[in-house]
Amino acid sequence: MTATRVGIIGASGYTGLELIKILVTHPFFDITYIATTTGGIDLDVLHPCMKGVFNCAVDKADTDEIIKKCDLVFLALPHQASMGFAKGLLNAGVKVVDLSADYRLDVDTYEKYYCAHEDKDHLDEAVYGLPELYREEIKKASLVANPGCYPTASILALAPFTKYIDESFPIFIDAKSGVTGAGKKCSDSTHFVSINENIFAYKVFNHRHEPEIKEKLFKQSKKEFDINFVPHLIPATRGELIKR
Amino acid sequence: MTATRVGIIGASGYTGLELIKILVTHPFFDITYIATTTGGIDLDVLHPCMKGVFNCAVDKADTDEIIKKCDLVFLALPHQASMGFAKGLLNAGVKVVDLSADYRLDVDTYEKYYCAHEDKDHLDEAVYGLPELYREEIKKASLVANPGCYPTASILALAPFTKYIDESFPIFIDAKSGVTGAGKKCSDSTHFVSINENIFAYKVFNHRHEPEIKEKLFKQSKKEFDINFVPHLIPATRGELIKR
Amino acid sequence: MTATRVGIIGASGYTGLELIKILVTHPFFDITYIATTTGGIDLDVLHPCMKGVFNCAVDKADTDEIIKKCDLVFLALPHQASMGFAKGLLNAGVKVVDLSADYRLDVDTYEKYYCAHEDKDHLDEAVYGLPELYREEIKKASLVANPGCYPTASILALAPFTKYIDESFPIFIDAKSGVTGAGKKCSDSTHFVSINENIFAYKVFNHRHEPEIKEKLFKQSKKEFDINFVPHLIPATRGELIKR
Amino acid sequence: MTATRVGIIGASGYTGLELIKILVTHPFFDITYIATTTGGIDLDVLHPCMKGVFNCAVDKADTDEIIKKCDLVFLALPHQASMGFAKGLLNAGVKVVDLSADYRLDVDTYEKYYCAHEDKDHLDEAVYGLPELYREEIKKASLVANPGCYPTASILALAPFTKYIDESFPIFIDAKSGVTGAGKKCSDSTHFVSINENIFAYKVFNHRHEPEIKEKLFKQSKKEFDINFVPHLIPATRGELIKR
Repeated sequence: MTATRVGIIGASGYTGLELIKILVTHPFFDITYIATTTGGIDLDVLHPCMKGVFNCAVDKADTDEIIKKCDLVFLALPHQASMGFAKGLLNAGVKVVDLSADYRLDVDTYEKYYCAHEDKDHLDEAVYGLPELYREEIKKASLVANPGCYPTASILALAPFTKYIDESFPIFIDAKSGVTGAGKKCSDSTHFVSINENIFAYKVFNHRHEPEIKEKLFKQSKKEFDINFVPHLIPATRGELIKR
Repeated sequence: MTATRVGIIGASGYTGLELIKILVTHPFFDITYIATTTGGIDLDVLHPCMKGVFNCAVDKADTDEIIKKCDLVFLALPHQASMGFAKGLLNAGVKVVDLSADYRLDVDTYEKYYCAHEDKDHLDEAVYGLPELYREEIKKASLVANPGCYPTASILALAPFTKYIDESFPIFIDAKSGVTGAGKKCSDSTHFVSINENIFAYKVFNHRHEPEIKEKLFKQSKKEFDINFVPHLIPATRGELIKR
Repeated sequence: MTATRVGIIGASGYTGLELIKILVTHPFFDITYIATTTGGIDLDVLHPCMKGVFNCAVDKADTDEIIKKCDLVFLALPHQASMGFAKGLLNAGVKVVDLSADYRLDVDTYEKYYCAHEDKDHLDEAVYGLPELYREEIKKASLVANPGCYPTASILALAPFTKYIDESFPIFIDAKSGVTGAGKKCSDSTHFVSINENIFAYKVFNHRHEPEIKEKLFKQSKKEFDINFVPHLIPATRGELIKR
Repeated sequence: MTATRVGIIGASGYTGLELIKILVTHPFFDITYIATTTGGIDLDVLHPCMKGVFNCAVDKADTDEIIKKCDLVFLALPHQASMGFAKGLLNAGVKVVDLSADYRLDVDTYEKYYCAHEDKDHLDEAVYGLPELYREEIKKASLVANPGCYPTASILALAPFTKYIDESFPIFIDAKSGVTGAGKKCSDSTHFVSINENIFAYKVFNHRHEPEIKEKLFKQSKKEFDINFVPHLIPATRGELIKR
């Protein structure tokens, strides 16, 4: 079997680095292209932990180059930036897994909570990348919309029970996330002194992952649940599920 | 004004040490007696952080000695051990603040969740030591039952709203505690490797603080609330309220 | 005894907040003035942990106001900003405790490692605020230069041994600091994800606290020690001495 | 290529679990036997994180079974227990990687710091499992003695420099370890409250890894270095090398 040639666009963030770590030793994939929106740096300078493990030039992301070098591309970019690249890649026959919110939601929900959608043509063919619910669709998809962190934890916890829960019953999701969920950019709440020895709620009933949870639970169950979503930051690096 | 002569029985645990730290510089109290159930050690050996700050012999707790030396005693002992001392001290006119569960609950609730009560005579005169609710009663009390950690956080959060909440409305308390709440004794769940970078629920719907929360909310509001209490351990040393 | 009227200039940072916490319950001091370089905010907005504990307006720091309202002032400002205020206050008879580096060093050392000194007149009268070494001088001082964090830990550890150590013997200081030492401003190394589950050296042999340690050890011992200073950041909020 | 049949004896500890995680997806190995000294449990009960990933019965370790089922065995056992198993396995032609101290040291050093050696016959053929120094020998070895954690970090840091360092020059190793190094058993120093927000030295100049570092550096360089080894516990789960 020939390995799939795979590219990662947006290699500087936490998700980009995790993708590289997974793909670099993966038996079915060859990393053939790594890029950021600025480029011009070596991977082991961008991520010193890659020194002696895997190195290559990090390019300035270029659609023509991607089309030449990749069968499949992971977009680890912010929303809006992602659809800018996805459109051209999909038209050229490159498969796309998008880690941003750009292809997760119906157009109305997306435009209410994010911004104007610039690639409505491909929105309909996007498969929501939760393999526990959509394994067969993912296998055949050209465009996979990777779920948000909180929706992953929330939908996987609720899906087995939706048939037993009445729509009038309020669902309270008291979610806790590690700090990588807030991204690599420094801020007051990701400063070590703010969150070490602490825990706090934020964006109470006001987080963009709430409509994503609602919409996906509706698709799975045809029920309009009364979701009350309260995200918290906890003093842990990573993760939303309890390790044991 | 003469300072009140104060004793601490059970000085080896976390609460005993915090009491010493508060009392040692307090303008109204003189520490005149410090004891554990075993004694025979100096305070700065028991708690090296007290070296150069405050030192004295830690005695084996003895009721006669306490009566001679103290006007007021803090019992920082496990439940059952506390009432063993409190009874004699109260009869001799020494005031008692008990940090255990021994005087927090009505006798039936206590005996259902803890053990047979051995000092029913004094149970009726105990004041629940939540100053936000019982400030005036505490001032006149001979026996103060210090609330549990989770009841303190839960009751203070709920008390302002009890008049607006219907008894049929389920109340969900998703409580998070630092690790000192589990006491000084090592266990699998207080091992650094277990709780660092982690968070987990324990004793779900099955923690002895749930009946305490129910009973105290009933006393305050005359309503039998439907309390669903889920305690969690978080990777922080201390505390249940969010610092800022 | 009348309480000393005390002001804190630079109340927004970590040291400013700690000063307020210490002074607010202190029996000998009255906080009469709190300021930052910008002002126009209430203290309990600037530091929400002060809500219900202590509140007042935080002014834009003004020398005339300070002189009117304070007998003693703590300057919790960056270096260079501190001497700008100290000069006028000292000339008006207000006592100053400066937490910056501005009055810690001889003029030549200061100008080599920091910037041009703008208040040489008062430099000579500054007392280095390490009470273990200069208790009597501090009592009589008008201007106390509070030591840096690493010099405090290093000098207190070395001072008892300087008479036994030969100048030719290399001294290696492997210092570890909590994250507040890096200040409140976010940076890549104070991001929770960078320092949690990590430890790293920085400014190896190149930290401005090294000349401070050398100069103060020389003053105390008349020996020119060969100091090799390597600071580290550790995943703890605060402190350089080991707690127990 | 046929996969090597591999067994893990001592699967309950931290090193046993890490071995399983590495081997379970490894292209060259088949896990054919997992045991502890007590057995009688399923792997996903012993380590809940293995649920849905890999499961099998955990047997009571039995030499005859191991010989039948394995080409290669990892012993993740305490010292002394390891050599009890290794002897018989080596005689039956099973290759052994021992994670304990039993085959790391010359017999005199071993018996001085640990206990009487019960398998001197195989001690001479053991290869010290540091691939950076002994890669070729490891490839051909029947018995690999896996290095201690501190020796790994210390020897790898010093080996490139030994030819430039004079024996009279004192070497100071200020080592820091995460908490897994202390093993899974709870103790006062591995209690979350002890080590969180803390760092402390232990077994100063008195840790059994010091003679291991000395002996291995001597073998590599023929120099008797003056090693001064001070281990520290830091508030991190795992590791001795700085991540980036």
